[in-house]
Amino acid sequence: MASARIEADYLLETPNDVRRVADFMAGEQSSGTFVAIPGETPELKARVAAQVTRLDVLDDAPAGPSLPSAGLDVKPGARFHRASLTLSWPLDTLGPSLPNLLATVAGNLFELKSVTGLKLLDIRLPHEFSTAYAGPRFGVEGTRRLAGVERRPLIGTIIKPSVGLGPQESAALVEELCRAGIDFIKDDELQADGPACPFDQRVESVMRVVNDHAQRTGKKVMFAFNLTGDLDQMRRRHDLLMKHGATCAMASLNSVGLVGMVELRRFCELPIHAHRNGWGYLTRHPMLGWSYIAWQKIWRLAGADHMHVNGVGNKFAESDESSLASARACLTPLFDDKPCKVLPVFSSAQTARQAPATYQGLGSADLIVTAGGGIMAHPLGAAAGVAAMQEAWEAALGGVPLADFARTRPNLQRALEMAA
Amino acid sequence: MASARIEADYLLETPNDVRRVADFMAGEQSSGTFVAIPGETPELKARVAAQVTRLDVLDDAPAGPSLPSAGLDVKPGARFHRASLTLSWPLDTLGPSLPNLLATVAGNLFELKSVTGLKLLDIRLPHEFSTAYAGPRFGVEGTRRLAGVERRPLIGTIIKPSVGLGPQESAALVEELCRAGIDFIKDDELQADGPACPFDQRVESVMRVVNDHAQRTGKKVMFAFNLTGDLDQMRRRHDLLMKHGATCAMASLNSVGLVGMVELRRFCELPIHAHRNGWGYLTRHPMLGWSYIAWQKIWRLAGADHMHVNGVGNKFAESDESSLASARACLTPLFDDKPCKVLPVFSSAQTARQAPATYQGLGSADLIVTAGGGIMAHPLGAAAGVAAMQEAWEAALGGVPLADFARTRPNLQRALEMAA
Repeated sequence: MASARIEADYLLETPNDVRRVADFMAGEQSSGTFVAIPGETPELKARVAAQVTRLDVLDDAPAGPSLPSAGLDVKPGARFHRASLTLSWPLDTLGPSLPNLLATVAGNLFELKSVTGLKLLDIRLPHEFSTAYAGPRFGVEGTRRLAGVERRPLIGTIIKPSVGLGPQESAALVEELCRAGIDFIKDDELQADGPACPFDQRVESVMRVVNDHAQRTGKKVMFAFNLTGDLDQMRRRHDLLMKHGATCAMASLNSVGLVGMVELRRFCELPIHAHRNGWGYLTRHPMLGWSYIAWQKIWRLAGADHMHVNGVGNKFAESDESSLASARACLTPLFDDKPCKVLPVFSSAQTARQAPATYQGLGSADLIVTAGGGIMAHPLGAAAGVAAMQEAWEAALGGVPLADFARTRPNLQRALEMAA
Repeated sequence: MASARIEADYLLETPNDVRRVADFMAGEQSSGTFVAIPGETPELKARVAAQVTRLDVLDDAPAGPSLPSAGLDVKPGARFHRASLTLSWPLDTLGPSLPNLLATVAGNLFELKSVTGLKLLDIRLPHEFSTAYAGPRFGVEGTRRLAGVERRPLIGTIIKPSVGLGPQESAALVEELCRAGIDFIKDDELQADGPACPFDQRVESVMRVVNDHAQRTGKKVMFAFNLTGDLDQMRRRHDLLMKHGATCAMASLNSVGLVGMVELRRFCELPIHAHRNGWGYLTRHPMLGWSYIAWQKIWRLAGADHMHVNGVGNKFAESDESSLASARACLTPLFDDKPCKVLPVFSSAQTARQAPATYQGLGSADLIVTAGGGIMAHPLGAAAGVAAMQEAWEAALGGVPLADFARTRPNLQRALEMAA
């Protein structure tokens, strides 16, 4: 029986013939190299060579080249051609290994001299990967169960200032947020275990407040503690979270890397809130690096439960369309029998106002939305800010225009005035 | 006493005022955020805020912008300004943690809407990092000792085809290379532990040949086995390497990530040959991502012993100047009392011909040079290919022109003819 195959889609730009460059990419990422090799027999190639299984020629680049290439021989007036293509590899050469998948689909090929643009658009993995990796332990359902939130999004916020508050000050802020009725709070990615706000003391102080509030009200606010660090540190911090009854752990994906994430998933008994800081350097140029559609698949399979996607009307460089496509990807099954769905996390300048567009674009209420000023700066206070977010989503889910819904709901009314 | 500080240098592009954007970057990566925050008091800012400690205005971008930014308000005919700047953070907010350093110096700031270009050029770490991380266990001296090579570069090669050879075929090739007098051989980064060439069988077959050759000749060729994988796999593979007397382990940095590398360094009793495949997506655009000068510091401190740098006259998109600057960085001390020097690995289309330019550009013979065709395709055979590489370096180190040196050395003579 033929080996299962891995597929990857790319957007390519080159001044040379796109078909020849695509073949060269396939060779470079499997049995070939820059020069003819005696050992690369036809039999060996048939067995292990990557193949170009699709190539669609696109319009040439409007100007060119997207990326400089030292020593590339470009004729004056040359056009830079673009193509969308698929490469395919037999699973047998690498096995169902995520780290080695990266070297295969996202390795040296970004450095090829004839390539003046290359974006990894998507990957498709054979079923063997679904049994080799755990995927999210909690995902959408597990997180909802722990947070006690059904049907609507988890309304969340971030501890701000990002750094500078001590453990007691953080706990005081959390107390205010718990009283306000929030579902979810997270550390900033800059706050982990610095001497100015040690992880252990922060957990102790914050969880005392969270647990007290849960005892009084029955609602246990989910706090994502940023345990990003070396492996032994993450283990120790995780155990401390368990000891104090915490319900979420946060890790920065580009900081811990793939082995760190796979290990964290193995021992972590809490939902993993995966922060994507650094994502900009992987994606910001349209003709270089990773699309989120490809990237999020790796981390979901490795075990993330929540994935950041920016948000509608965000303050970063990303378009709403891109954020929403990322979020939809998080809820698209990875495998038929192992969907690995994770909660997309909407953040950056989120207010009540974005609820309808977010719901329309995502087609689901399975998300976490974190609002800072949108909650804390509400003129009637943080509780009114949380209520307004909930009301906005109630309106969105019911298909009622926000302005209509707000007529009898002063919290939402004031929130909309504030965000206008 | 004031806290020690972390510094990072950036190249910035923006249509807005560079000074204001730099201040915004500092705020966003410490105590500030997009909107004014009640808790960000002057006292707190003084204690934890990042500072812009240097800003040099450069020429505007020739055209612009380097990177698109959704929703950025750019006036028609706007200029895109550039600056070189330094940000500085108190160590107290994060502590000497490499994973959290990444989130701080290379986190969200690449996504800022007003940023149309951002490259991390360099980082400087306070001494606390030098005690928190191990650095290379072997480095230059330890690798030379294990490989039994003094004063000159380690002459190496790569198993080719990259994938497709089985364990026995790999061993047969290694036998030929051992007889040829090679110092160093490495797996391709595409070859790890696929069903088509399982790691264990490859190690067994190859090390039988390497050990036999060592017994006969006293020379133990260093073979870098690619153990890239999940953590438990890497541990198991490492133990197998130790059992068979192997002397080098290879790992793909962008595949294992930082936590994977720090852990590998903890248990690995062999030099770690660090492969940088994927580096292209981190650096290929001149106004986005990482410079190698900054990037290699992270991995050296984490424990790499050998770092890939491309090579003079390489077949990739990188210039010789860039490769040589990367290689010099690998040999530049990280800390006065803990230099963490690692061997730069020159590869891609390397032949005898590049020895003088490489030596002139690097100013040292502390390197590994891997040649494929430059050795295997020598018309007098692989042994002549290795001899020619050694002779070329003898000439370079002695300041003798290659052509002169080759007059009485037919192996070198033929190598130069071949590479011409």
